[in-house]
Amino acid sequence: MAKYKAPLRDMQFVLNEVFEADKLWASMEATQEVTPDLAEAILEEGAKLTEHELFPLNLSGDAEGCRFEKGQVFTPKGFKEAYQALSEGGWMGLGGNPEYGGQGMPKMLTVLFEEMLYASNAAFTLYPALNNGATLLLDSHASDEIKEKYLPPMYEGRWIGTMCLTEPHSGTDLGLIRTKAEPKGDGTYTISGNKIWITGGEHDLAENIIHLVLAKLPDAPPGTKGISLFLVPKLKINEDNSPGEANQVNCGAIEHKMGIKGSATCVINFDGAEGIMIGEPHRGLAAMFTMMNYERLSIGIQGLGLGEVAYQSAMDFAKERLQSRAPTGPKNPEKPADPILVHPDVRRMALNVRAFNEGSRAFASYVGMQLDISKYHEDDTTRKHAADLVALLTPVAKAFITDRGFDATVEAQQIYGGSGYCTEWGAEQYVRDARIAQIYEGTNGIQAMDLMGRKVFANKGEFLNIFTKDVREFLAECTSANMAPWAETLEAELKRLENVTEAVIKAGSENPEEIGAAAVDYLNLFGLVAYAYMWARMVKLAQEKADADSSGFYAAKIQVGNHYLKRILPRTLALEQQILAGSEVLMTLEEEAFYVE
Amino acid sequence: MAKYKAPLRDMQFVLNEVFEADKLWASMEATQEVTPDLAEAILEEGAKLTEHELFPLNLSGDAEGCRFEKGQVFTPKGFKEAYQALSEGGWMGLGGNPEYGGQGMPKMLTVLFEEMLYASNAAFTLYPALNNGATLLLDSHASDEIKEKYLPPMYEGRWIGTMCLTEPHSGTDLGLIRTKAEPKGDGTYTISGNKIWITGGEHDLAENIIHLVLAKLPDAPPGTKGISLFLVPKLKINEDNSPGEANQVNCGAIEHKMGIKGSATCVINFDGAEGIMIGEPHRGLAAMFTMMNYERLSIGIQGLGLGEVAYQSAMDFAKERLQSRAPTGPKNPEKPADPILVHPDVRRMALNVRAFNEGSRAFASYVGMQLDISKYHEDDTTRKHAADLVALLTPVAKAFITDRGFDATVEAQQIYGGSGYCTEWGAEQYVRDARIAQIYEGTNGIQAMDLMGRKVFANKGEFLNIFTKDVREFLAECTSANMAPWAETLEAELKRLENVTEAVIKAGSENPEEIGAAAVDYLNLFGLVAYAYMWARMVKLAQEKADADSSGFYAAKIQVGNHYLKRILPRTLALEQQILAGSEVLMTLEEEAFYVE
Repeated sequence: MAKYKAPLRDMQFVLNEVFEADKLWASMEATQEVTPDLAEAILEEGAKLTEHELFPLNLSGDAEGCRFEKGQVFTPKGFKEAYQALSEGGWMGLGGNPEYGGQGMPKMLTVLFEEMLYASNAAFTLYPALNNGATLLLDSHASDEIKEKYLPPMYEGRWIGTMCLTEPHSGTDLGLIRTKAEPKGDGTYTISGNKIWITGGEHDLAENIIHLVLAKLPDAPPGTKGISLFLVPKLKINEDNSPGEANQVNCGAIEHKMGIKGSATCVINFDGAEGIMIGEPHRGLAAMFTMMNYERLSIGIQGLGLGEVAYQSAMDFAKERLQSRAPTGPKNPEKPADPILVHPDVRRMALNVRAFNEGSRAFASYVGMQLDISKYHEDDTTRKHAADLVALLTPVAKAFITDRGFDATVEAQQIYGGSGYCTEWGAEQYVRDARIAQIYEGTNGIQAMDLMGRKVFANKGEFLNIFTKDVREFLAECTSANMAPWAETLEAELKRLENVTEAVIKAGSENPEEIGAAAVDYLNLFGLVAYAYMWARMVKLAQEKADADSSGFYAAKIQVGNHYLKRILPRTLALEQQILAGSEVLMTLEEEAFYVE
Repeated sequence: MAKYKAPLRDMQFVLNEVFEADKLWASMEATQEVTPDLAEAILEEGAKLTEHELFPLNLSGDAEGCRFEKGQVFTPKGFKEAYQALSEGGWMGLGGNPEYGGQGMPKMLTVLFEEMLYASNAAFTLYPALNNGATLLLDSHASDEIKEKYLPPMYEGRWIGTMCLTEPHSGTDLGLIRTKAEPKGDGTYTISGNKIWITGGEHDLAENIIHLVLAKLPDAPPGTKGISLFLVPKLKINEDNSPGEANQVNCGAIEHKMGIKGSATCVINFDGAEGIMIGEPHRGLAAMFTMMNYERLSIGIQGLGLGEVAYQSAMDFAKERLQSRAPTGPKNPEKPADPILVHPDVRRMALNVRAFNEGSRAFASYVGMQLDISKYHEDDTTRKHAADLVALLTPVAKAFITDRGFDATVEAQQIYGGSGYCTEWGAEQYVRDARIAQIYEGTNGIQAMDLMGRKVFANKGEFLNIFTKDVREFLAECTSANMAPWAETLEAELKRLENVTEAVIKAGSENPEEIGAAAVDYLNLFGLVAYAYMWARMVKLAQEKADADSSGFYAAKIQVGNHYLKRILPRTLALEQQILAGSEVLMTLEEEAFYVE
């Protein structure tokens, strides 16, 4: 049946061995107290919580879903108790600012806990994930007064944040929003408008819900430059900071969705609700991007978590399922058939899933590390270097991890045969729950446009050069004979990426359609190369340690890496040609010829 | 919202222009009465039926699902009336043997009607699709007496067939089945055993259900050579051929599934039921393959149908959805934003879907044509040639069409953004309904093993050579300058396919694991090349006719073909490398290292 055990050994490998987190943490003042022992204890406790409290609610939460009754939303059985456990354990403020009651743990560590959360129960996890983004936004953009009032109860989980952007006519194109904010003259605002697809917009988990809402002031310039940001609580806050009377915030409906059924996706109507402004007038979208960038990495990790639990569950099935004989003769002669992992094609699927999961774990940690450096490092140049990498890699982390995470759930489901299609095994839920991660928080097509247009084209490859330089510095260390295939292939892939980048920058300068035409294939090419870098780092370490290791961990790492190198990375060949095919192929057909009358 | 209109123009193009069905039909006695007018009238009536009777029940059938109560299964509201309409219109026997009341229409025509069925309502269509396979099996393997008794009511839809293979411990590996058949001495048998995943095993649509059941006789040799085939009716048949008392056939449960929720997937218990043998003792699996091969092409068409309705629905959405501006400036300046098809990446997705749908339609028709030739042609060599092609292409038709059909539903869903994840739009149902087609009727991994092992390796590429010879005969006709890119690329792709084939045959002779290691990538490579052949044939015709055509049909065909050539076909580059990576990469990791403890 469904199975989840937090992959602590692999997490420790990534954290301590591949990226030497202990050295980094010791080198920065804000993280000096995070010792390897503390990190290990946190991950172990996180594993217990997610394996024993959240995972058992995953299938039942999907079957039951959320219920909407007269404006109220009821989460599935057990969610409230699990949320209580999460809050009381201090997990809601794990990465929060210690000045306001957060635990101050580095991102590099919290991404691993986030993976456990999503793996064990993706629908449930969206409630805390949105709160994390909301608190980060407030910590970055709100006044001290607001932070003092809102952050402590949000870090405690008593209050919980949301993110209100989309309107029925305005999703990707936020410049079109119509929600209005009228100043009342006392420093507060009256917010009126209808928001849709608000994750956790209403529910029964916390005593108050803190909505972060994009709206337009009366004097707003048109488009995205006229958007401001407001904090609108579900219940108004009393003088003593307790939740008081109801604000004019109403849940009109919840969506019926393909998956994440335990997560309430709400229509939220602001019917003249009282709100306060966060940050500057008309600068709300920039502030919201603090939250969106956070959520983008988080949603990437949703893809990873679901890929991991899908792998583990599929292997649990594979172990018991006997069908046919190995091509080279019975491996299990005393039984009527062999376990299905004797079949090369079943292994191919399992290795695909695993190679991407382990690559994603390393990549998410790498991005988390850059986030920590960009925030906490004392050296300006180092911080800038890391911040540029974060800008470059965030769309890749969101889109590539979720695309590969979805593929992983589909491929894991395939390993089951017919059982994978039946609800009781859980495999099909992972597919449905993973699918949304490719769509929300900016579709993966939008992420690709962000990468290709804003992060590569706009600065003529400047950020990319920082990345390739880092990779080449690593390659210079790959002097051992058994790293030669990696070093040669990775150098060739870097050249391919650079050539393609140059071609697109050139073509895009003449015709802006070239950028969009290349975007998704380019993001996939970039992701494959970035994962090859992650795998090369992992394999190099594993090669150095394999001989002295009897557990088989490093030997397996080398084998899975080899699968990535030989049977996955060649996808770049196709992507290169597809990108170089250019935009004309896409743009020639008349728009009308697409539609079916 | 969801939209479906049978693509009659494209169907006519494939049937009459690309494959010149009229000439073929006129040349064979069994199909001489099928004129182009008759074919057109059938497709037009089929379009009306599927668009107006079946499609409106698609979303509601998914929401309601089948209901199981005390051994009875109730299909969703409206299914019974729709089934009545299908039966009364003579559609249940459309491809059936005229000697027993069938309509005798060629496969090349019925595949197009099947596409309409699956597109309009995949869950519903499984009931008639199974009946088609069951009647084909009986027509091919049963005695005249049995045919006279069973075929007419089955062609009328009064009785409906099923296919009972799988048992809880025995899916892919049918040699493991335990269902027993004891001879009663009067020529009938007592059938005892438990079958699972029986599509339409029990329901309220027809007055009787005719189960075709694999079981073992008491003296059966072990494995697949000891399997016999039995016909077991739900209600015993009276002397006057009316359904009589209940047989010992009981439905124990229905499955809760990811999709095709209107199709009842049943646990069927044969508790000493009365049955008759079809064909020879211990030769049941061979007979069942007549049905399975039929169903494999049919399930391929499920992928196509869902890809088509997903495309149409997504384009209906795209037409209305305004978000952002075209990269080259507003196309729709009087509105607040442009329709999303101005964005190159949205077009990329739409063209991917469409290029595969149109390729699949041509390919399914091509296989249908070979089936007709193999059955009806008077010349032995021509029949043999076609039968070999059918053997080669059937696993490709099943697996490649359903894999690309699933991709199509996912990519179409992506075009919607968040709406694609919400149930009301229908897009997410297409994904769920398409997913099963990659799993049942032999998983796509099993199809790939059939292609690579039995259809290519076992005969050292003999069937493949028939195919490549046909393609090269066509290429010899591509003498016009504007076909040069097609002719060159296709010849290069044929060579790539031949080289890879040779390499796998060589490697597989030394190590049987090489066959399974190559299988899925090989099937995908084969499929891409086969579709390139289909596209080349379509584009050649379109180029010849485009100038004289004001409808834009041929111009669009050339453009979509160009997208296939430039932005899809390069995937062969990656597949080639993945195949040549061989089996060692997959087989080295210890089996235990896959499992998570």
